Amino acid sequence: MLTIYSPDHRHQDAHVELTDGQLVAPYENPKRADRILSQIQQADLGMVLPPKDFGLAPILRVHDRGFVSFLQSAWSEWLAAHGEFDALPLNWATRTMRHDRIPETIEGKLSYYSFDAGTPIIAGTWQAAMASAQVALTGQDWLVQGERSVFSLCRPPGHHAARDLYGGYCFLNNAAIAAQALLDAGAERVAIFDVDYHHGNGTQAIFYDRSDVLFVSIHAHPSHSYPYFLGFEDETGAGVGEGFTRNYPLPLGTDWKAYAEPLEQALNTIRHYAPDAVVVSLGVDTYEADPISSFRLQSHDFHAMGQAIARLNKPTLIVMEGGYALEAIGVNVGNFLQGVEEG
Amino acid sequence: MLTIYSPDHRHQDAHVELTDGQLVAPYENPKRADRILSQIQQADLGMVLPPKDFGLAPILRVHDRGFVSFLQSAWSEWLAAHGEFDALPLNWATRTMRHDRIPETIEGKLSYYSFDAGTPIIAGTWQAAMASAQVALTGQDWLVQGERSVFSLCRPPGHHAARDLYGGYCFLNNAAIAAQALLDAGAERVAIFDVDYHHGNGTQAIFYDRSDVLFVSIHAHPSHSYPYFLGFEDETGAGVGEGFTRNYPLPLGTDWKAYAEPLEQALNTIRHYAPDAVVVSLGVDTYEADPISSFRLQSHDFHAMGQAIARLNKPTLIVMEGGYALEAIGVNVGNFLQGVEEG
Repeated sequence: MLTIYSPDHRHQDAHVELTDGQLVAPYENPKRADRILSQIQQADLGMVLPPKDFGLAPILRVHDRGFVSFLQSAWSEWLAAHGEFDALPLNWATRTMRHDRIPETIEGKLSYYSFDAGTPIIAGTWQAAMASAQVALTGQDWLVQGERSVFSLCRPPGHHAARDLYGGYCFLNNAAIAAQALLDAGAERVAIFDVDYHHGNGTQAIFYDRSDVLFVSIHAHPSHSYPYFLGFEDETGAGVGEGFTRNYPLPLGTDWKAYAEPLEQALNTIRHYAPDAVVVSLGVDTYEADPISSFRLQSHDFHAMGQAIARLNKPTLIVMEGGYALEAIGVNVGNFLQGVEEG
Repeated sequence: MLTIYSPDHRHQDAHVELTDGQLVAPYENPKRADRILSQIQQADLGMVLPPKDFGLAPILRVHDRGFVSFLQSAWSEWLAAHGEFDALPLNWATRTMRHDRIPETIEGKLSYYSFDAGTPIIAGTWQAAMASAQVALTGQDWLVQGERSVFSLCRPPGHHAARDLYGGYCFLNNAAIAAQALLDAGAERVAIFDVDYHHGNGTQAIFYDRSDVLFVSIHAHPSHSYPYFLGFEDETGAGVGEGFTRNYPLPLGTDWKAYAEPLEQALNTIRHYAPDAVVVSLGVDTYEADPISSFRLQSHDFHAMGQAIARLNKPTLIVMEGGYALEAIGVNVGNFLQGVEEG
């Protein structure tokens, strides 16, 4: 399988994230992509190609222009105000507060455009996020050229980012940008299948009122897991999008035995939609030893997951999302990709 | 002037707060109240009395029962899950997310009930917040008994806390609880005058659709200052509360010369309302050397501010809110109280 990769992901190499009341070394760090890349090379999983540059236009098909401008200038504004440590917001526009005024100061803008305190912006954030989006777009382009399956080794991940919100380690929604580009290249229906441990709240929000993108997600139940405020079963879409969002929230401790059935249901939902292409948001944080998640999939289960998805028999773009067990992230992703190849 | 004070404020003595991307020693710390108390004693500003216990009932007149239960058990739940460091939330239910589901885990509950990452919950938080509310209620009770002006030396502060939201160092909204108690004791109209540097978003939200409490605030403009998402001029109340909220947002660097005129306008708004009593949310973070604020009032200006408020000639409860310049907080509060006494 073709893999698209850019070393520019290394520019997102923050010092801290806020987790469980402490500032800790980021779980989302460059080693993640490095380990996946070396596994792909060691296991001879196919060619690794750099991204092409599709510019900003396909990003602005999904994201708000003001949000993109903010991401481009956030670090220089922060640096001028606060100096060399990572930019984190302090407060958020929750219920009782207004969402119709964008603050003028960098601290206020961080607050306005984010939804968590665990996603640091540093000097290289925009460069890394932009490269990650191009990695997704290049994979999409290969699919349009006739490839059956392509792996976009995106980092930073994207599925938590909404039209004008960043958070959950995500800045630009790579999967959503690729899905929109597939539509713009002629596809009539695209399915996004999100198998990350965490609900892809950003992707869901972007396509919630549309019928040309089906969003299907299997994830830890938001009643106990991040991002808490989206990903329930009763979220099924709005307006013409009604029926085109489908969530399968699962309990803590879910193992392959408990995962396989909702996986098959989700795949049947996708089959019934008959998409022209499938974009998989691949998180391997469903792995049993993931440090910030609580499912119990084993490494070989990712092989079975890849096989099951391959049986959709659709052109498939795999976009990398989460997965934080460095010792196994390469093998887990490799197993998944091999499963897709074998079908 | 009578001062109400409880040493229980010392139970809110956190290790860290998140400010400008770093975990720093909290600006909101026990020394603040200690310095104010010693200034009151040194300057012979009147008797200092402990609070009486009014229990939970008057708190539940203002705050949501589920929120209060959460505050009561948050630390023990956090301790069981994460051990001995301060409890801080990680993400928030901003736009695109749901507000109608309360998570089951402590991490999710922190996220649901808060709006910032700078307000740590520790072992003593509930005890301190509860004592602070009783300090406000006791001051209110003395007013009902006929005192003309009373100072409730509340800590932690309260004006950022809404019906079911904590943040901005605030857990229970002491000023709102006292105002409601004044109404419940027979007042028909109460005015809350918030002179803290930061907009009292919690107080405003609590009374936004009511006409029996007038909320008037002079503060740093939310376009550049915390809490960013409330406190604009065009927020004037809703429903029967229309016309009973009044905001005077001011630019960075405001000094007494620029402050005096909106102060007089605000006082005229209060006069026109003809309240039975006035609750002042007193923040002295408008002081020129405050470490987290950007106005330029000098210590003697607080004396003039107290005098101006005394000219309302109404029973007045002064509730302590912010102010973080430890070296001057005592003098600034003392000057204000002396101004009120001299009228």
